[in-house]
Amino acid sequence: MTDTTERRVFRLMRRPSGELGDGDLVLSREALADILDDEVRIRTLLLSIDPSNRIWMSDADQYMPPVAIGAPMRGVTLAVIEESRSSKFSPGDIVTPLDGEWASHQVLPASRLARARPREGIPLSALMSIFGPPGLTAHVGMVEIAGVKEGETVTVSAAAGAVGSVAGQIAKARGCRVIGIAGGPEKCAWLTDELGFDAAIDYKRYDVGTELARLAPDGIHAHFENVGGAILDAAIANMAEGGRIALCGLVSTYNEGGPVPGPREFQRVLMHRLTIRGFIVLDHFARAREAFAEIEELARSGRLKWRDHIVEGLENAPDALSLLFAGKNSGKLMVRVSDR
Amino acid sequence: MTDTTERRVFRLMRRPSGELGDGDLVLSREALADILDDEVRIRTLLLSIDPSNRIWMSDADQYMPPVAIGAPMRGVTLAVIEESRSSKFSPGDIVTPLDGEWASHQVLPASRLARARPREGIPLSALMSIFGPPGLTAHVGMVEIAGVKEGETVTVSAAAGAVGSVAGQIAKARGCRVIGIAGGPEKCAWLTDELGFDAAIDYKRYDVGTELARLAPDGIHAHFENVGGAILDAAIANMAEGGRIALCGLVSTYNEGGPVPGPREFQRVLMHRLTIRGFIVLDHFARAREAFAEIEELARSGRLKWRDHIVEGLENAPDALSLLFAGKNSGKLMVRVSDR
Repeated sequence: MTDTTERRVFRLMRRPSGELGDGDLVLSREALADILDDEVRIRTLLLSIDPSNRIWMSDADQYMPPVAIGAPMRGVTLAVIEESRSSKFSPGDIVTPLDGEWASHQVLPASRLARARPREGIPLSALMSIFGPPGLTAHVGMVEIAGVKEGETVTVSAAAGAVGSVAGQIAKARGCRVIGIAGGPEKCAWLTDELGFDAAIDYKRYDVGTELARLAPDGIHAHFENVGGAILDAAIANMAEGGRIALCGLVSTYNEGGPVPGPREFQRVLMHRLTIRGFIVLDHFARAREAFAEIEELARSGRLKWRDHIVEGLENAPDALSLLFAGKNSGKLMVRVSDR
Repeated sequence: MTDTTERRVFRLMRRPSGELGDGDLVLSREALADILDDEVRIRTLLLSIDPSNRIWMSDADQYMPPVAIGAPMRGVTLAVIEESRSSKFSPGDIVTPLDGEWASHQVLPASRLARARPREGIPLSALMSIFGPPGLTAHVGMVEIAGVKEGETVTVSAAAGAVGSVAGQIAKARGCRVIGIAGGPEKCAWLTDELGFDAAIDYKRYDVGTELARLAPDGIHAHFENVGGAILDAAIANMAEGGRIALCGLVSTYNEGGPVPGPREFQRVLMHRLTIRGFIVLDHFARAREAFAEIEELARSGRLKWRDHIVEGLENAPDALSLLFAGKNSGKLMVRVSDR
C-alpha cells in the first residue's frame, strides 16, 4: 500500500479537427478520490494506443458514446492493484479496467475490472497485443468473420500493424496463401522474411490493384480490411466470386470528418457475390479463451511473431497517437505509464 | 409439327447510352436453322422482362458475358417444343431454354433445355414469376442470404416488384414485421391492403430515411435491396446492430454508365456491425425445389399473392423494358410471344 493521493490524467478539452492538435488533450494533476467499500485503486502500467482512440475523440456515429468534452480520455489499459477494499482483488494483482483512462491511477469499483493473466516467460506487454484486443480482433476477423479455409488466398491491409500482422499469421497457420499490404520496404520485408507472409505489397511504392491482380490472378477469397478507401477499392476489384471481406477498420478515414463513402465500384459486391461484414471486437469477448489458446500455441512454437512498440511516459501519449497515424510505429503501440 | 422456316428475333445493334433508344435493338426476320440430331425447335410462349436485360446490353462488369453486338438479345423465356429430334422431348412439352433469346423460335440442342412444370390450376405465366427466377430470387434472398427470423423487422425496396413483393410475403409468412418501399400510393396500398405488409413507404412522396426511423425505431434487422443509391443509404442509416443486407439488385444504377458508388456512410457498416451480401440467383438453382414448394403452399393457401403483367407481342419487348425502368408495370412483367 502506498500513499498516492494524486493522479495525472489527460482530459479531452475539444474535439480535434483533422489530426490531433495541441490543446485538444490536456494533462493535469488531480486529487484521487477516496476508495469506498468494494472499490480499488489501480496504477496504470501500460496504455494502448489505437486507431479507435481518434474515433472516440470525435462525435461521429460510433460504437461507443464519444468521450465527453472535459472528461478523461478513454483508453485500453493494463494496471496493477495498489490498494483494495474489495475481497476480489489484492495489491499486486494485474487487471484490465473496463473503463480505462489515459491516467496514472484510477479509483474504480472492483466490478469494473477484469483479471489479466500474464503468461509465463512472455513479456507483460503481450497482454496488450497478442493476448489483448488486437490479438482477439485478428483471430475473430480471420476465423469467425472471414472464415478462412485451407488453400485460400487471403489479403490483409495494414498488415504490419498490431492486428494485421497477427491476422496474417493466423491465416498462414490455417494453410492459406497470405498477401500483406503495408507502407514501406521495411514493413514489407518484415512480413515476408520474418512472419512468413507469401508476399507483401508496399502501397507507397506500387499500385495495389495492379499488384493484387498479379499476385492473386485467380482472385482473393478473403480480405481483412483495416484501412478503407483506395486500399479497399483495390481489394474489391480483385476478389474472387463469393469472396468475403472482414471489415475491421477504416483507419484511413478516422482523421477526416463527415461520412465515409463506400467502395467506388459497389456493383462488384453484387456481380461477384461478395460479402462485406463489419465487426467490433467488443461483441466477441466470449471467444477470447479459444482465440488466445491458439495464439499462445502459435507463439510458443515460433509460428507467430509480434513486436510491441513501447513509448515511455504518459505525457507522450498524444505524440504516440500521431506516430500511429503516421504509420511510423513498428508493432503494437503502447505507452508505459509505470513499471510493474 | 408445323412448317416453321423463319423466325423473328431482336438483335443488339449497339449498346444503349442511358435509356434504351430506337435502333439499339432491331427486330428482323431470319431463316431458322435445320434441326440436327438431338436438337429441337422451340416456339417462345413468354419472354421475361427484367432489370438484368439492361445490364446484359452494356459492357459493364457483370455476372455473365455481355450480349455481343449483332447477336440475338438474351432473355429468360418459357417455350413449347414444336419439333424434336431428341428422345428427351416431345412436341407440346413446356421448357425453359438455358440460352433463351428475344425471338419467336429457337433451334437448340436438347441438352440446353430444362423441363418446366406447369402447376394445376395456376396460370402458365406463374412459371415466369413466382415459380421462376423472381420467386427463387425472393426466397433465396430472404431465407438464405438475409436469414430472416420470426419477430424481426424486415424492409424491402422495390417492394411492389416481382421479386420484392414475393420476398416481403415470404418474410411475413415467417413471422417478420415487413415494411415495403415502393413508388406511388397505388403500389403502397397494394402492399398493405392486399399483400399484408405491415407498412409501406412511398419513396416518391416521403423521405425514406425519416419514415424508416419512424416505422422501425428499434432498427431494421434485415433489408432486401433491389434498388441501391439513396434507398440503400436510407436503409443503412436505420439498420439495427448486426443487421443483414441481402443485395439483390442495384436497379437505380443500371441505366447509368461507369462505376456504382457504395453507401454514402460506409462507416456504419463497421460501427453497426452490418453484413452486406451480394447474390445472384444463378448460383442457387439447387434450392429451387424447396423454395417453390414453400411458395406453392403459400400461394394455394392464399397467403402469397402475385400479379403477372403481360404485354402482348414480341415487337413490344423494348417498350416493355422501358415500362419496367419507369416503374409503370404492375407485377412481374413479361411479353406474350405466342399462345400455348
